[in-house]
Amino acid sequence: MDTSMTSSDGAIFSMDCDRRCSYSVVVADHVLECTASPLHRLLRGRRALAVTTPTVHAFYRQALDDFCRWGDIDLLVLDVSEETKTLATAERICQRALALGLDRRAMLVSIGGGVCSDLCSVAASLIRRGIGCIRVPTTLIGQIDAALGVKGGVNFEGRKSYLGCFTAPALVVLDPTFLRTLQRCDFQRGLAEIIKIGLVRDEGLFELVESAWREFIDTRGRTPTSRLIIERAALRMLEELQGNPFEDKTYERLVDAGHTFSPRIEAASGFSIHHGEAVAIDLCLSATIAAEAGLMSWNARDRVVNLIDAIGLPAFTPVANAALCAAALTEAARHRGGHTDLVLPRRIGEAVFVKSECDLQPHVVPAAIERLEVDASARYVAAGSGAAARA
Amino acid sequence: MDTSMTSSDGAIFSMDCDRRCSYSVVVADHVLECTASPLHRLLRGRRALAVTTPTVHAFYRQALDDFCRWGDIDLLVLDVSEETKTLATAERICQRALALGLDRRAMLVSIGGGVCSDLCSVAASLIRRGIGCIRVPTTLIGQIDAALGVKGGVNFEGRKSYLGCFTAPALVVLDPTFLRTLQRCDFQRGLAEIIKIGLVRDEGLFELVESAWREFIDTRGRTPTSRLIIERAALRMLEELQGNPFEDKTYERLVDAGHTFSPRIEAASGFSIHHGEAVAIDLCLSATIAAEAGLMSWNARDRVVNLIDAIGLPAFTPVANAALCAAALTEAARHRGGHTDLVLPRRIGEAVFVKSECDLQPHVVPAAIERLEVDASARYVAAGSGAAARA
Repeated sequence: MDTSMTSSDGAIFSMDCDRRCSYSVVVADHVLECTASPLHRLLRGRRALAVTTPTVHAFYRQALDDFCRWGDIDLLVLDVSEETKTLATAERICQRALALGLDRRAMLVSIGGGVCSDLCSVAASLIRRGIGCIRVPTTLIGQIDAALGVKGGVNFEGRKSYLGCFTAPALVVLDPTFLRTLQRCDFQRGLAEIIKIGLVRDEGLFELVESAWREFIDTRGRTPTSRLIIERAALRMLEELQGNPFEDKTYERLVDAGHTFSPRIEAASGFSIHHGEAVAIDLCLSATIAAEAGLMSWNARDRVVNLIDAIGLPAFTPVANAALCAAALTEAARHRGGHTDLVLPRRIGEAVFVKSECDLQPHVVPAAIERLEVDASARYVAAGSGAAARA
Repeated sequence: MDTSMTSSDGAIFSMDCDRRCSYSVVVADHVLECTASPLHRLLRGRRALAVTTPTVHAFYRQALDDFCRWGDIDLLVLDVSEETKTLATAERICQRALALGLDRRAMLVSIGGGVCSDLCSVAASLIRRGIGCIRVPTTLIGQIDAALGVKGGVNFEGRKSYLGCFTAPALVVLDPTFLRTLQRCDFQRGLAEIIKIGLVRDEGLFELVESAWREFIDTRGRTPTSRLIIERAALRMLEELQGNPFEDKTYERLVDAGHTFSPRIEAASGFSIHHGEAVAIDLCLSATIAAEAGLMSWNARDRVVNLIDAIGLPAFTPVANAALCAAALTEAARHRGGHTDLVLPRRIGEAVFVKSECDLQPHVVPAAIERLEVDASARYVAAGSGAAARA
């Protein structure tokens, strides 16, 4: 009797476990009400747990109730924030799923902003080792960024999205009519991510924002140009994600622009600085570093900072000091397989990767911080004199 | 200007996110000591956190210390059990990973039984949205079952492995020398899973166990026949998993034999009935149901029950009453996409799926329970008289 099945290197088996999947991103107005929507088509014959936030619930109670009554759908209203974006909150979703006896074909439906969809994605990836998750982002930042990819995450021990998953959603529905009830600040924050993708990838989109941001905010995304901005930003984001959705092919990701310093800034501020604001600060830092390093013209750098400032986003915070920036670069390298891969713009619409801190001269980051600090003081004084002149 | 990018159905993008991966299952004696092993090759140049149990640590302290010193490896000794196989315990692993500053290339190394590898798999899948996990199962049940596939899981609100992940390990190392320090009961429990795979898939393996189980247990797996049993059981398991590792192609899984009633039995006993014992009881139930339903001969059914009894595994527990079995069948359908998919043997080495409870006549399950209860009493009496005779 042959007493061994092993090959010379001891391997008895090589397990192939390729996992194929794809998902659609659709645009649909008034999606909760429209029972012919792709959302309703996917949910027909399935049980579901919809998770939403108190804000969304207050504005869309009737539509949510009708949606739940239309199908075999329960509703969980969760008060979520960066502070409660934790495994414990994800567990609350799991508890409800268990109490409802959801089967493996059942789905979670996240109807809310980025925090809500992050939590739902993590919960869905855990429940019965993974049930489907549909994302209906109700914020601008959700529609053009947070809800588009395969990531879910929760904060852990003060570290932003340290735990999470790469799990493809079952469907993503972008419904611009949700944006009508957003506050001005939500539009500003969303614009930070739109500026990001324009800056590193699409000059035309950046110019569109430069020319139409006021119309975009004032009409809450209702005009044709505003919708074009949303769809174009979402599309550019999706194109960037495609090809490396699980971040296992390369750590060079253009969409990481604005996301090297910002996680630390958010955490160091105790999350009083919102994600979109931190991204805006990070973009100004990156553009100024690029100008200080002679990579991009000061003219282009000024366009970035001026646009962010005009929109009403912060271009600087004292929280982003030299120590924080150094720690962020070290952490980025740890997170990105050993390379810093800082995304720096070369011109509006094009960016490069800085592989290592050593590729930047030591004075560059501190000089950029100082420059932004001086600019911020000047703007503060100008705003003050302006106010004095008007008084 | 074109103001819309949407197609007629509202889809602006279809994201393909195929994920390719494969992993090796290798057999290697004294793997911790052998620095030329596949384990050491994979860990060279990476940081790692090895997680082990107090039992393994007590037996292999020197080898573990040498292994950690060889590389950039930290050790976490975690007292784990079914009661503590929870998200909170997985979080302890995550906390240590965070404290160590593990990067995305770092790996967890689970050196322990099925509970340890389940916890490590869940933790690894969450840390930075997924770092690698190497499994070095030290128990028989781990080497021929728990550690081979892509599943990780934790118990949740009294429900066995309700939360978890499908995440391919980076490598699985079967080191039979670990089995030498196992207790007799660990071999018995492992044999339950070996009998399972033989019963539904490999008559020769079943016969091998019938003829050599005593040698297998007494020598702690050291003889050539014992090693053949381990490798053959592992290989059959891997062959069954291959093709449907994520359980997304079909819910008809032969390896689910012995795993329809057993999760409820374990949970209902407060986990005082071990997984392997519950599987043994489930197999006896399934074989007896098959015989009661006229699917399998009583002779073959008796071989199953007699083998399990001879090995010293339980063939029955009063916990497995009609209500529990009915609830287990309902839950199985919920977990398996609407179909019960109860695996019933047709003969030794071959099994079929019962799609729905309705395909079983109502008397069959209660009759099987009664038969097992009667048999158990008879064995109890026989054992008593035997003891009396010997006295």
